[in-house]
Amino acid sequence: MNTPSALEEMMAALRCLPGVGPKSAQRMAYHLLQRDKSGALRLAQALARAVERIHHCVKCNNYAEEEICSLCRSLKRDAGLLCVVEMPADLLMMEQAQCYRGMYFVLMGRLSPLDGVGPRDLPLDRLLRRAQENIGEVILATNFTVEGDATAHYISTLLAAQGIKVSRIARGLPVGGELEYVDSGTLAQAVLERRVVTG
Amino acid sequence: MNTPSALEEMMAALRCLPGVGPKSAQRMAYHLLQRDKSGALRLAQALARAVERIHHCVKCNNYAEEEICSLCRSLKRDAGLLCVVEMPADLLMMEQAQCYRGMYFVLMGRLSPLDGVGPRDLPLDRLLRRAQENIGEVILATNFTVEGDATAHYISTLLAAQGIKVSRIARGLPVGGELEYVDSGTLAQAVLERRVVTG
Repeated sequence: MNTPSALEEMMAALRCLPGVGPKSAQRMAYHLLQRDKSGALRLAQALARAVERIHHCVKCNNYAEEEICSLCRSLKRDAGLLCVVEMPADLLMMEQAQCYRGMYFVLMGRLSPLDGVGPRDLPLDRLLRRAQENIGEVILATNFTVEGDATAHYISTLLAAQGIKVSRIARGLPVGGELEYVDSGTLAQAVLERRVVTG
Repeated sequence: MNTPSALEEMMAALRCLPGVGPKSAQRMAYHLLQRDKSGALRLAQALARAVERIHHCVKCNNYAEEEICSLCRSLKRDAGLLCVVEMPADLLMMEQAQCYRGMYFVLMGRLSPLDGVGPRDLPLDRLLRRAQENIGEVILATNFTVEGDATAHYISTLLAAQGIKVSRIARGLPVGGELEYVDSGTLAQAVLERRVVTG
């Protein structure tokens, strides 16, 4: 084979990225070498730095460089509200929606017996301790998948046993949603969980 | 913003990869942190090493770690044939097809006036010198696009003026191609460039 080994190694290493197969890896490698060597060096440094510095916040379990992340240290947030999400990307979406000003707890996963993830594999004891620190309400914002629902149900039982108020984010039609095109499961839930408007 | 800056920087740096937007970069960053930290470190090293070591072969202009690449040094190849391709990926495809055992010259581009790439932006003087080193035939294997065809035409004029034999790879229906589904341009060329089978 006439490919330089450093190039082959770069192509192989690029395949650790999700969704990148051999052809994409080849395209990426050639692109970086031909057009963006500085970008490649910047990426190399950013990867090394991120792996070295990023750990989990001891309070919210999200990724952080400090022991306690800036969100948990912030005085502008409502310290009496705790929102439980599955993944850091979910927290990011909540923040982008600008609909919530309380604290968070990131599970870094969900209950999923099929994948061998049971209650012991999630930091539920840490969540329980965190929820007992002057939290008035825990809002469960796990996904509305089978696993996310099961996780929410498990956590609500756990917290309710300690007398902690627990709520779940609403399920229903999306904003701009049309009845004609929505799936029947969502429509059925929207009818079931309908809100009283007047009277 | 509560995202650690090392994480933000990693997401920003990942966007130097072709086809990676903000959402993909986020997914890749979280994937690496959660599941594949060793892969991230390996990628960081591979990128830095590739940028540092990979240069162009002085003979064929392909990427190489040495001054002259292993293919150009090989004694098993036919030194009298020179195949001209646009990009290193094209050379790789030729090698994978195992249809050619001669030498190569990689243009690292194509004539493309719309993108401001003229004859002076391609290493045509190096190609001319290379073609005069005991080469019996130059095979033009640029793409069958407008730019690739124009490049092939330009090079063939250049080399023919020096009395060098030049050929172009065949155009026609792909292997397994059906007339019903092929585009009319390809079919027209296949008829125009038909081969005598008998008589």
